[in-house]
Amino acid sequence: MSETVYTVAWDRETNSILYIDQTALPGRYEVVRCTTVDLLADAIRRLAIRGAPALGVAGAMGVAVAAAQSRETDFNRFRDEVEEAAEMLRSTRPTAVNLAWGIDRVLAEIRNAASVGEARSRAVAEALAVADEDEATCRTLGRFGAELIPDGATVLTHCNAGALACRAWGTALGVIRSAVAAGKSVRVIACETRPLNQGSRLTCWELAHEGFDVTLITDSSAAYLMQTGAIDLVIVGADRITRDAVFNKIGTYMHAVSARHHGIPFYVAAPLSTFDLIHEAKDIIIEERSRDELAYCGEQQLVPANVKVLNYAFDATPLELVTAVVTEIGVLRPPYTDSFASLQARRY
Amino acid sequence: MSETVYTVAWDRETNSILYIDQTALPGRYEVVRCTTVDLLADAIRRLAIRGAPALGVAGAMGVAVAAAQSRETDFNRFRDEVEEAAEMLRSTRPTAVNLAWGIDRVLAEIRNAASVGEARSRAVAEALAVADEDEATCRTLGRFGAELIPDGATVLTHCNAGALACRAWGTALGVIRSAVAAGKSVRVIACETRPLNQGSRLTCWELAHEGFDVTLITDSSAAYLMQTGAIDLVIVGADRITRDAVFNKIGTYMHAVSARHHGIPFYVAAPLSTFDLIHEAKDIIIEERSRDELAYCGEQQLVPANVKVLNYAFDATPLELVTAVVTEIGVLRPPYTDSFASLQARRY
Repeated sequence: MSETVYTVAWDRETNSILYIDQTALPGRYEVVRCTTVDLLADAIRRLAIRGAPALGVAGAMGVAVAAAQSRETDFNRFRDEVEEAAEMLRSTRPTAVNLAWGIDRVLAEIRNAASVGEARSRAVAEALAVADEDEATCRTLGRFGAELIPDGATVLTHCNAGALACRAWGTALGVIRSAVAAGKSVRVIACETRPLNQGSRLTCWELAHEGFDVTLITDSSAAYLMQTGAIDLVIVGADRITRDAVFNKIGTYMHAVSARHHGIPFYVAAPLSTFDLIHEAKDIIIEERSRDELAYCGEQQLVPANVKVLNYAFDATPLELVTAVVTEIGVLRPPYTDSFASLQARRY
Repeated sequence: MSETVYTVAWDRETNSILYIDQTALPGRYEVVRCTTVDLLADAIRRLAIRGAPALGVAGAMGVAVAAAQSRETDFNRFRDEVEEAAEMLRSTRPTAVNLAWGIDRVLAEIRNAASVGEARSRAVAEALAVADEDEATCRTLGRFGAELIPDGATVLTHCNAGALACRAWGTALGVIRSAVAAGKSVRVIACETRPLNQGSRLTCWELAHEGFDVTLITDSSAAYLMQTGAIDLVIVGADRITRDAVFNKIGTYMHAVSARHHGIPFYVAAPLSTFDLIHEAKDIIIEERSRDELAYCGEQQLVPANVKVLNYAFDATPLELVTAVVTEIGVLRPPYTDSFASLQARRY
């Protein structure tokens, strides 16, 4: 991926969004134009755009699209229309906190504007700022996290917390990119990440594309590789960090339990926009996704029609199992009650 | 599955093997006739026949087919031909111990015969005995194991240790069948079991077919369900039990680690034919299977061609993580050095 290709980008000429369709990878690399909030919501529901930071950018740009494309001239009606679109967009992924965060940043600009014209230009400017900050954040976070990766390390990761999950660079994979950029040798073990195989399709694709040393395993092999001594550390992204837990792709908790059992460090890499320190794990709804994600392999039916399927998209890893959280302001370590308190003093 | 349908059966009229093609399930239920050892070896390599006890029956019947179909009239040349076929068959799955055990039981009969005719009839008789004993063993084992399942329990299982993994009834699923037959209410959580989805395709199929309450999850959801309190116990089968570890489908170890972390009982159900008490875990080669099992979903390529894949078929769970081993002579508990010593005094 060259430096100029972004997972989610804004086209200034047409006031629309360009995104890499992640459902088509690794078979097809396709950039899709998205001109309405409805199309964006559909892309998010289908996981054509996914990954917490990328959802933040998409949320911000979604509100900007709604503002830019609205034909309302009355400011109150304009605001109502944009807010309605924003609420629909917010509901597409209930667990990821960045989506709502990106939406709210642009909504605040619109609310503080005095006219439709000012609201439109402030919305677009804020969405672009969210996007630019996301890349800068990932690069800063990556440099802090790179200190945690020993030269020659084999690093296990789950799902895709890479460039494709962000505007660019990545969170967990951003840390690995920064370690390699700093001259370290790093071998990556990518878990396929059932049921939608974001590890196989996205993490392997983006790392192999840049010449990284990456090996794919089944999710269920991770603990055994830890037993054999093949894994030096685990690093994953996050969809939401509450006061007591990290919400991330289903399977993250299993890796954290295994890492603890084997005395292996377990790191989470996430921007501050992923933190939700007003909530605890018990407050958060875990998104359940469609039965079909497990029931079919392409056209082939894997499960008889009368079998129930339980398909949680995320799980919650208690902070007790997390060795450190890598952010753009540095590496946070236990006791998290203290390190998180300093965040709250800043902004959260 | 009615009582008269067997995973692997002997056809007396044609001296051939009939087996359920497990690669076709759940889409098609197909019974295939197998008239040569080469065809049988291919069926085992493709996992059309799989599961430790079923492989024991198939190994025994494979040697019987070789004996029955041989055209050699000289006893020495006959024996050489059958032994060569047996060694080829033995090499198809290196980790499963039952395959070799079934092969050796029939080979011993052939070696102790005085003529080609006697060897043929003793081979077929022994293969039928192995098959009959397997079903009886599973039913006895099931009754012992049923005592461990509380009424109303939710039981997690991995892969397929059911009727399809044996002649009939099953080991881990045999325990569940026996518990239900004893009037208990049992809910089963089946892990899909990547990469070949034996949980989705086989466990869900055979349990739903008989009206059991079964729910499918991704392998990576198991630990999270344990965290939420949804799982009361884990029960799995085994491909080989050494002095210090249980070899079973990849992912078993991860469930054992998670069960220990959550204080949930972790049971293994296996006949004595699965025990290999002359070896330790470090002596055993873990079979690595084809890259394609992870790289494709039907025709769809999931992983770029330049990405490495590590595809272990099994893992090793140290006995320290096993709450009890259910066998046809009773429930073995720690310290296993003592309970296994009594087995060695019997036969092993």
